[in-house]
Amino acid sequence: MTFQFDRNDPEAAIAEAAERCSNWGRWGDRDVRGTLNHLDDGKRREAAELVHRGAVFSLAQRFDTDGPQKGWRRRTNPVHTMLDTGTDAAAGSQGFPHGIGGADDVVSMPLQCSTQWDGLGHIFDRARAWNGRPAGEVVTAAGDQVTGIETAADGFTGRAVLLDAGRALGEDGELPDGFAITAEQLTEIADRQGSAVGRGDIVLVRTGQLTRARRDGWGDYAGGPAPGLSFGTAEWLHGTEIAAIATDTWGVEVRPNEFADAFQPLHQIAIPHIGLFLGEMWDLDALAADCAWDGRYDFLLAAAPIPITGAVGAPVNPIAVK
Amino acid sequence: MTFQFDRNDPEAAIAEAAERCSNWGRWGDRDVRGTLNHLDDGKRREAAELVHRGAVFSLAQRFDTDGPQKGWRRRTNPVHTMLDTGTDAAAGSQGFPHGIGGADDVVSMPLQCSTQWDGLGHIFDRARAWNGRPAGEVVTAAGDQVTGIETAADGFTGRAVLLDAGRALGEDGELPDGFAITAEQLTEIADRQGSAVGRGDIVLVRTGQLTRARRDGWGDYAGGPAPGLSFGTAEWLHGTEIAAIATDTWGVEVRPNEFADAFQPLHQIAIPHIGLFLGEMWDLDALAADCAWDGRYDFLLAAAPIPITGAVGAPVNPIAVK
Amino acid sequence: MTFQFDRNDPEAAIAEAAERCSNWGRWGDRDVRGTLNHLDDGKRREAAELVHRGAVFSLAQRFDTDGPQKGWRRRTNPVHTMLDTGTDAAAGSQGFPHGIGGADDVVSMPLQCSTQWDGLGHIFDRARAWNGRPAGEVVTAAGDQVTGIETAADGFTGRAVLLDAGRALGEDGELPDGFAITAEQLTEIADRQGSAVGRGDIVLVRTGQLTRARRDGWGDYAGGPAPGLSFGTAEWLHGTEIAAIATDTWGVEVRPNEFADAFQPLHQIAIPHIGLFLGEMWDLDALAADCAWDGRYDFLLAAAPIPITGAVGAPVNPIAVK
Amino acid sequence: MTFQFDRNDPEAAIAEAAERCSNWGRWGDRDVRGTLNHLDDGKRREAAELVHRGAVFSLAQRFDTDGPQKGWRRRTNPVHTMLDTGTDAAAGSQGFPHGIGGADDVVSMPLQCSTQWDGLGHIFDRARAWNGRPAGEVVTAAGDQVTGIETAADGFTGRAVLLDAGRALGEDGELPDGFAITAEQLTEIADRQGSAVGRGDIVLVRTGQLTRARRDGWGDYAGGPAPGLSFGTAEWLHGTEIAAIATDTWGVEVRPNEFADAFQPLHQIAIPHIGLFLGEMWDLDALAADCAWDGRYDFLLAAAPIPITGAVGAPVNPIAVK
Repeated sequence: MTFQFDRNDPEAAIAEAAERCSNWGRWGDRDVRGTLNHLDDGKRREAAELVHRGAVFSLAQRFDTDGPQKGWRRRTNPVHTMLDTGTDAAAGSQGFPHGIGGADDVVSMPLQCSTQWDGLGHIFDRARAWNGRPAGEVVTAAGDQVTGIETAADGFTGRAVLLDAGRALGEDGELPDGFAITAEQLTEIADRQGSAVGRGDIVLVRTGQLTRARRDGWGDYAGGPAPGLSFGTAEWLHGTEIAAIATDTWGVEVRPNEFADAFQPLHQIAIPHIGLFLGEMWDLDALAADCAWDGRYDFLLAAAPIPITGAVGAPVNPIAVK
Repeated sequence: MTFQFDRNDPEAAIAEAAERCSNWGRWGDRDVRGTLNHLDDGKRREAAELVHRGAVFSLAQRFDTDGPQKGWRRRTNPVHTMLDTGTDAAAGSQGFPHGIGGADDVVSMPLQCSTQWDGLGHIFDRARAWNGRPAGEVVTAAGDQVTGIETAADGFTGRAVLLDAGRALGEDGELPDGFAITAEQLTEIADRQGSAVGRGDIVLVRTGQLTRARRDGWGDYAGGPAPGLSFGTAEWLHGTEIAAIATDTWGVEVRPNEFADAFQPLHQIAIPHIGLFLGEMWDLDALAADCAWDGRYDFLLAAAPIPITGAVGAPVNPIAVK
Repeated sequence: MTFQFDRNDPEAAIAEAAERCSNWGRWGDRDVRGTLNHLDDGKRREAAELVHRGAVFSLAQRFDTDGPQKGWRRRTNPVHTMLDTGTDAAAGSQGFPHGIGGADDVVSMPLQCSTQWDGLGHIFDRARAWNGRPAGEVVTAAGDQVTGIETAADGFTGRAVLLDAGRALGEDGELPDGFAITAEQLTEIADRQGSAVGRGDIVLVRTGQLTRARRDGWGDYAGGPAPGLSFGTAEWLHGTEIAAIATDTWGVEVRPNEFADAFQPLHQIAIPHIGLFLGEMWDLDALAADCAWDGRYDFLLAAAPIPITGAVGAPVNPIAVK
Repeated sequence: MTFQFDRNDPEAAIAEAAERCSNWGRWGDRDVRGTLNHLDDGKRREAAELVHRGAVFSLAQRFDTDGPQKGWRRRTNPVHTMLDTGTDAAAGSQGFPHGIGGADDVVSMPLQCSTQWDGLGHIFDRARAWNGRPAGEVVTAAGDQVTGIETAADGFTGRAVLLDAGRALGEDGELPDGFAITAEQLTEIADRQGSAVGRGDIVLVRTGQLTRARRDGWGDYAGGPAPGLSFGTAEWLHGTEIAAIATDTWGVEVRPNEFADAFQPLHQIAIPHIGLFLGEMWDLDALAADCAWDGRYDFLLAAAPIPITGAVGAPVNPIAVK
């Protein structure tokens, strides 16, 4: 099921994958939800039935000034500042009556600085956005006029399956940077775990890179070498009819990318052609430890992004309940 | 169960309510979760069992430059700008290889500009924060050092009950501004709906004010007159042992407040003394219409805030599943 | 000298003015300074000789959260927040040694929220920027790649002339909104004041609208009706060979604009064709009062913008010395 | 004239210097201008007479995303984003009439990210701000309520003297990091240059560190080791009655600081006790080359900060005219 491709010819490989994996028109000309169309009420009922213990896990990293970003293309870490503080309240300088005091705050941040979903307007292939739309008509300086993340505000709640590639294929639970996970391996992990992946599921792939970054420091976590999906998984992403996929890495796919001079080629298929939402920088460690312990790798996931109008991606605090 | 108070003496009323409703020390000196302690695994299992149809509702407003904020105490609407656009991708000026193009974005916003949770560091009573801590030691210019919203990152998933006060007590589904909802009315609505409210539940109160604002324009939605909880509901909020409460208004409580010269006196009890999380500016309309239709007012809610380190409140996209 | 134009045909009027007033190619293909080329060392020497008393005037408005902006096209007022405060320093929570304490701050603001210069990349005519360059090759989402305001960082210091149109043509020193100042009137004011305007000068036109806004409230100061230059002054702006022009209004030119369905048509000539820098929202009141008192309307001006890389406009605190 | 101090006892040294150098009360209880009181009309006339050639120099660094900041205490580099672009104008998606197109932009930045003036509310000594005011009453989360930079909006224009310590004391025009410049050396440089420093002057000290950073990369320019003023220059700063002083380094004073466990001790005297404004990260290289060439080291300087209400420091584009 892994797509074979010529590593010296990214253009040809991308063109071929685009053709094989296209969902353009599948849900009509006006579609803005892409693979979220696979996730239906039945899948949400199925997800609810997976809640056995009531255990809950937040899969978000902290949105923190000491985060992984290093300023690439102006992607900084969040800057959080206070409009009012407890110190001022204690000093009595706030001007409120009857002893009430308050604190209030502001944040300035790239929408992809930490745990997030890529929206369908995030990536283009040869100037085409999801469903074949001209990129220039979709995302202007005023934002995403068509597939802004607000159009997916009620998506991303359903059955999720954790594929713990770090534990299954790595040493001490971690894959090395540059490790390309294949479609066969994804299937094999699912089989071994007893958790089939199918239509409408949300797939979470743990590589263990975040575990390593937490231990050793961020280093080049943001954009540097990383384990991740092989370009060859494009057909698996398309054929399984999953609703979305997320990883614990900066960019979902293996880095360095598998072509000589390349930048995120799997994104170029997944987002504009498959209409697939990609989740990045998720913290899967506590959940994965729990799955390893109880042997259950599927659960209810609620992972709705903050619906910032016109955003091409958005912060999320994904919640898993087992 | 509604607390009786002297409208001419807010200081005395607040002091008395604070004493009656205090949860200080209830979960130990180090507690940072307040009433989220009421929400346990059992409650999450109960919530999952409430998923019958698999219908899903996002309870977030759009985070939009055309939002309700008017700049009070520097609370503006979000400013969303692009770091890269589809127009640039189409013009070929982005410098990426093999035909890939991208869009990326940034937001600058007050954390309480739209649908949000108040954290436990948001409000103080006479310079004391939740659990009796000195406000000045909790929230400095560096943020909330103790009860930052990241400490509640895995909270807010459980059984929720919608109390549709707009439909139950109003005309055409809307309460007028200045309407003070009492504890008796909350109980009566729950009884009539057949949805008891108890320990660990998250309560959503719809007043219909947002419906009105959407129809008539924002006007003074942010901080002006509004229907909402009476100060007298403090004991109900405490006694029911709910985990959190949210409304479709700017400030949860009735405005103008019920004392002559007052500012959000119920907050002054709820947050620092009860340790109760307050949700504001939720969009309950679609959910409420569905509840009115199928007669089921309780459901699974997943409403985890974005865990911005040190934040005293945070954006959330609450998801209800029925 | 005032250009005659058909008020029902903005396209034709603009095309004709563009042709008459073009400076394209005048300073070579690579020019990025436009009319700043008129301002030379000799002009700066002349300016220095105008310093008689040593009196100094700041011509900047305060950059303030209570400013004139109302959110049009995401132009908000500045949001200034603290990273560290004196209250925290006094509370001893900053962690610095030997009794030092500090305060530090951040601002988030549109570059045209208050007193500013329009850069040459701010306005285009039929997709052409200054010097005939394609707009799409000049200003992308990454900023102005060619004429970013940093390229004019050492400009704007020279001889300036105040033309106090408010006092000369208005009542009580103020022109009414909608008053279109003609080229003849500009010349007449200069003559009457005894301050000729010529090559390399910076012209400051006071209408008195800011005086009014300060007295009566901002109202629609940002983008609403205003006194200002007639479209017919285009040839005067070109022919006088001035280096720059600034006013005390939001948009330099008269508003409503003089064509039926129009938006800032004089900008469309001045910036891309003449290569003229426009200053907006300057505070000329104290300076004008002084000029009325001592009868001297020309002086040294130092008005260098903050050189934010790639900006199409920038904040400035202009200093006049008489 | 250099103050002698015990390097093992910063508290004692600071207390003694504070006593010797205090200007508290010198200009009345309400003073907010500190040493700007030394700079009068006569000094501005003198400055104008220094304009011989009309040559102009911008002393600002670029405000750039690739700047020196590394996030210390949330001090990041500026993030500049576009609200409208030329690409969009060219694509015709802006909705303006008669062929006009526009670009507009926003910046989010710490006020001390690049070339700036420290305001008088920036530093405190044992919880006291300039003129002896309690720090907590001066700078709250709402900003500097007393000495906000807007109160100095018309300051900083006068005679300036460049002391090129890099050329005078260094090798190849650069002082090594950790080099502490003494008061004697400052006087000697002025003497050698033939440019006396006295009451009301603005002093610019070039160390050459920025030259090095530009050549070798930023490294630890922001907060790391640097040449700069010795703590012992406190009395010189006080006694010369200069109006302000600026350098080409991050923090004016030598780093590492001259006490064992110290942080910017000279700031602790200069700002709250002397009432002296400190300029940081100025680009003095082109000006210094010119001074070395023509032998004139004094000139007119116009260096008015952007008057952001309540700011404790502010960006400036200083202009020198010779």
